[in-house]
Amino acid sequence: MRAAALHRGELVLRDDVPDPRPGFGEVLVAVKACGICGSDLHFASHGAEMLAATDEIEGVPDLGAPPIDLDRDVFMGHEFAAEVLEFGPDTVGPEPGTIVTSIPILLSMTGIRTIVYSNDVAAGYGEQMLLSAPLLLEVPNGLDPRHAAMTEPMAVGLHAVNRADIVAGEGALVLGCGPVGLAVIAALHLHGVDHIVAADFSSARRAMALQLGAHEAVDPRDEPAFVAWRRSGGARPLVVFDAIGVPGIINDVLRSAPPRSRLIVVGVCMQPDTINPLFGISKELDVRFALGYDPTEFTDTLRHIAEGQIDVALMITGEVGLDGVGDAFAALADPEEHCKILVVP
Amino acid sequence: MRAAALHRGELVLRDDVPDPRPGFGEVLVAVKACGICGSDLHFASHGAEMLAATDEIEGVPDLGAPPIDLDRDVFMGHEFAAEVLEFGPDTVGPEPGTIVTSIPILLSMTGIRTIVYSNDVAAGYGEQMLLSAPLLLEVPNGLDPRHAAMTEPMAVGLHAVNRADIVAGEGALVLGCGPVGLAVIAALHLHGVDHIVAADFSSARRAMALQLGAHEAVDPRDEPAFVAWRRSGGARPLVVFDAIGVPGIINDVLRSAPPRSRLIVVGVCMQPDTINPLFGISKELDVRFALGYDPTEFTDTLRHIAEGQIDVALMITGEVGLDGVGDAFAALADPEEHCKILVVP
Repeated sequence: MRAAALHRGELVLRDDVPDPRPGFGEVLVAVKACGICGSDLHFASHGAEMLAATDEIEGVPDLGAPPIDLDRDVFMGHEFAAEVLEFGPDTVGPEPGTIVTSIPILLSMTGIRTIVYSNDVAAGYGEQMLLSAPLLLEVPNGLDPRHAAMTEPMAVGLHAVNRADIVAGEGALVLGCGPVGLAVIAALHLHGVDHIVAADFSSARRAMALQLGAHEAVDPRDEPAFVAWRRSGGARPLVVFDAIGVPGIINDVLRSAPPRSRLIVVGVCMQPDTINPLFGISKELDVRFALGYDPTEFTDTLRHIAEGQIDVALMITGEVGLDGVGDAFAALADPEEHCKILVVP
Repeated sequence: MRAAALHRGELVLRDDVPDPRPGFGEVLVAVKACGICGSDLHFASHGAEMLAATDEIEGVPDLGAPPIDLDRDVFMGHEFAAEVLEFGPDTVGPEPGTIVTSIPILLSMTGIRTIVYSNDVAAGYGEQMLLSAPLLLEVPNGLDPRHAAMTEPMAVGLHAVNRADIVAGEGALVLGCGPVGLAVIAALHLHGVDHIVAADFSSARRAMALQLGAHEAVDPRDEPAFVAWRRSGGARPLVVFDAIGVPGIINDVLRSAPPRSRLIVVGVCMQPDTINPLFGISKELDVRFALGYDPTEFTDTLRHIAEGQIDVALMITGEVGLDGVGDAFAALADPEEHCKILVVP
């Protein structure tokens, strides 16, 4: 089959990838749409650093997945909607032709594998892939598969908001209005947060932030984000979301946030970063790191989209075939032009 | 009067400090004992850096205190017990001769001042000082003033434990068994935490940790703290306390802590520090910075000490007069020798 793969930092189109064949518990699906995630862009540029840092981490259960070899093709694409083709032996599920999505986890007889970066597990930037029958979610309400593919990134926002434990009367400041920041804003809006300030350099992304529920969206070149918050949010207790994920942001928040604020770090900064702990101590700040979502948050997000509670269509700014993935990775560097580009094989 | 003062990084004895005179709402007291705090040692060595970093912090209310001039004498000493001498005009309180303590805050007609570092507010390393009549706490049960002076550092531990929101079934790992770490251990023990592991290079401090309620105390040279925790604490959810406060510790915890642990940063690291946010993200860690205590925690701590629930005597390893403060600062660099040294004017 055909698939786009990462090869030594470049996205290349392969037409000789072995066709995936479903085993027990698995289902073969045809990818209908797959979003390009910012973490895939990071991985393409900084894969070796990220793998080295990941190797240092202690205390995470080893699922037995083979190490990733960056000298071989790496398959990516974890924000997908797909059509059911065929089940593995002794495995049942929705009728062939059904549109489904799933958390990007493959439960197989050989172990648990994530469908994120892999030399051998097919993923969303390809014609076909395998999913786990027990994890399939039918896409309801005749929802366009391109919109269903937005479930994954929007679930990241819901999870970050749940991690924040926001209570009535608290407000939010969202730093960065890329897909993750916008997902946070949509989840804050659904949560009923009564004051949401967004900050981004891009006017296009600020416009999206307002459409998804931000009460105000500022350009930090015109007014620093925390100055805008103090003017606009007043004395409300504050939860800050870092949806930028580059070095320096955490320390900026520690320096500038009001006392006793909470910072939810949801943008993935892949490089080492410098902070001044005295800033955090002097104001008793909380820093909570957020990653992914749980299956319930994923299911809830699909329902929110299918019922029209989140208008994901406005975030989709482009669509490419498998031969356009490389150009799309390059195009996403310009935030004025793009937000979410979908790969439609 | 006589007082020890910090002058260009050195502790010097002055015998010509103006006698404090109580104004409205104030009380003149004779210092009976004042503990030397690790933050005073830091300030003596890194005062300029600390003031520069403090100046950068935004969002903290300005109480109008004059800036600290490190070229003039700086008065320090905020862990005190004292004897009431005389009240200011139209001000009442406990009888002269009563032994009291207080949070180190001076409420005066000219504003709110902290009794921590100041060019003009007298503090605990002197014969006399001013306190706020409404904040005075009588020392009960005939408690030795030297033990009452331990209220302040022990309240820091109680506050850190309260910040952690520990629930039944969670365990604790305390990194560093100086006075702050020991205060945390005592508070964890009073809180009923069923598994407390302490780590420190000093055998003397490890012995104190065990006496104050740690279930195990390890030397990180023999067994890394998180290895010890996994062996000893098992699969309990974990709260880690950083009571060391030097660069590198926060990142070590992010790298090594089990998923979903909470880190309470209670040791004050005065220098910039490098972290790898990916470590925190991949395990969804929480980092909570803790500072000081509230008045209720201070009062509760005084009661705990006076009722014998915390044996602070074992932490007091030395006693000096005002002329010995400089040598005591030097001696505290050796953790095998000392834990808490009291200044007894």
